[in-house]
Amino acid sequence: MTVITIERKVLAKNDEVAAENRALFARHGLFVFNIVSSPGAGKTSLLERTLEALEGSLKIAVVEGDVQTDLDAQRVARYGVPAVQIVTHGGCHLEAKLVQAALASLDLGGLDLLVIENVGNLVCPANYDLGEALKVVVVSTTEGDDKPLKYPGMFRNASVLIINKIDLLPHLDADVEVLERHALQINPALTVFRISCRTGAGIAEWCAWLRAQVKTPG
Amino acid sequence: MTVITIERKVLAKNDEVAAENRALFARHGLFVFNIVSSPGAGKTSLLERTLEALEGSLKIAVVEGDVQTDLDAQRVARYGVPAVQIVTHGGCHLEAKLVQAALASLDLGGLDLLVIENVGNLVCPANYDLGEALKVVVVSTTEGDDKPLKYPGMFRNASVLIINKIDLLPHLDADVEVLERHALQINPALTVFRISCRTGAGIAEWCAWLRAQVKTPG
Repeated sequence: MTVITIERKVLAKNDEVAAENRALFARHGLFVFNIVSSPGAGKTSLLERTLEALEGSLKIAVVEGDVQTDLDAQRVARYGVPAVQIVTHGGCHLEAKLVQAALASLDLGGLDLLVIENVGNLVCPANYDLGEALKVVVVSTTEGDDKPLKYPGMFRNASVLIINKIDLLPHLDADVEVLERHALQINPALTVFRISCRTGAGIAEWCAWLRAQVKTPG
Repeated sequence: MTVITIERKVLAKNDEVAAENRALFARHGLFVFNIVSSPGAGKTSLLERTLEALEGSLKIAVVEGDVQTDLDAQRVARYGVPAVQIVTHGGCHLEAKLVQAALASLDLGGLDLLVIENVGNLVCPANYDLGEALKVVVVSTTEGDDKPLKYPGMFRNASVLIINKIDLLPHLDADVEVLERHALQINPALTVFRISCRTGAGIAEWCAWLRAQVKTPG
């Protein structure tokens, strides 16, 4: 009972700061999404392929969240975009105030799109609003087709599902149709893309959708 | 500061209950390990292959932890072993008191080995002692070779590393040597097994090691 009360207070405070972030993004006409997934599902690879595909057409910055290391910010910075690394030092999710602090290092005025890559965790980040327009959940085919049923919170709170590593499907027992059906059972409003960051399959469709969101924010 | 204080209190209380669990396991001469990993790394598949390999030679029971559903307990129960499902309803890790409650449903006296399968999460379960003899961290080759550096807490607190899905290595950019080197850099004391739950590779070596642990507990 006590724990629930504390958690509610933490979430209420987080929601206040998230609202401030959201207002700031709106003032700058900035589209912001928050990528969430298990460790190793391919969040950073998705970001790399997205940065390649949108280079020259959109001005993008990235906020990276990691438990430890700035490896992801280093990967992203190679694409010539501003990248801020938040190291949570053991913390299992990003919170709105960490993002707010990171924003101080970015010139939001010149940007079209801000991508926040969360800590790799399919549970905890689900309930933390960062002020983003939407959450994009990435799931890898290698994780099996039952994950939406087993971790429903994240799929319920996301707007987009990206099924990554479809190139590995011939070598797996997992069924991508079953995976997608399970996800839509949890959240019928999900927009779904099937991609492979390794082969580039599906990246054009995802980026076309993303470009349309940036042009018609809200 | 407040959050840290609360967290320390929670962990101190958890450690007390974990010590009670550990004393109970010792009274029954029971070897207990706690399997941790990202969602979809293969904890339940490892358990299935292990139950097959040890059938008839050891008396085993399983405690399953999941955010939602009893799918894993159903999978395990097919092997004819007692299985108790803990559903955390959004909770991101098992705690000692949840395991203590689950133990009430098991006849510990007749058992040689108890396996606790944690919630799929490479961050939060690292700091929660359940009373187990050791933690076994499972990582899938598909997660990439940088995960020990990015999620060091879990690798630091584990005694065994199981690298699963080695059958997929020919189709991946990840390097299993680099993955193992990164893990040993975080924790040089790790015992490492390379396996494929799909092909059965490495399962015999892992089970031989496990059988030796059960016979010489402590």
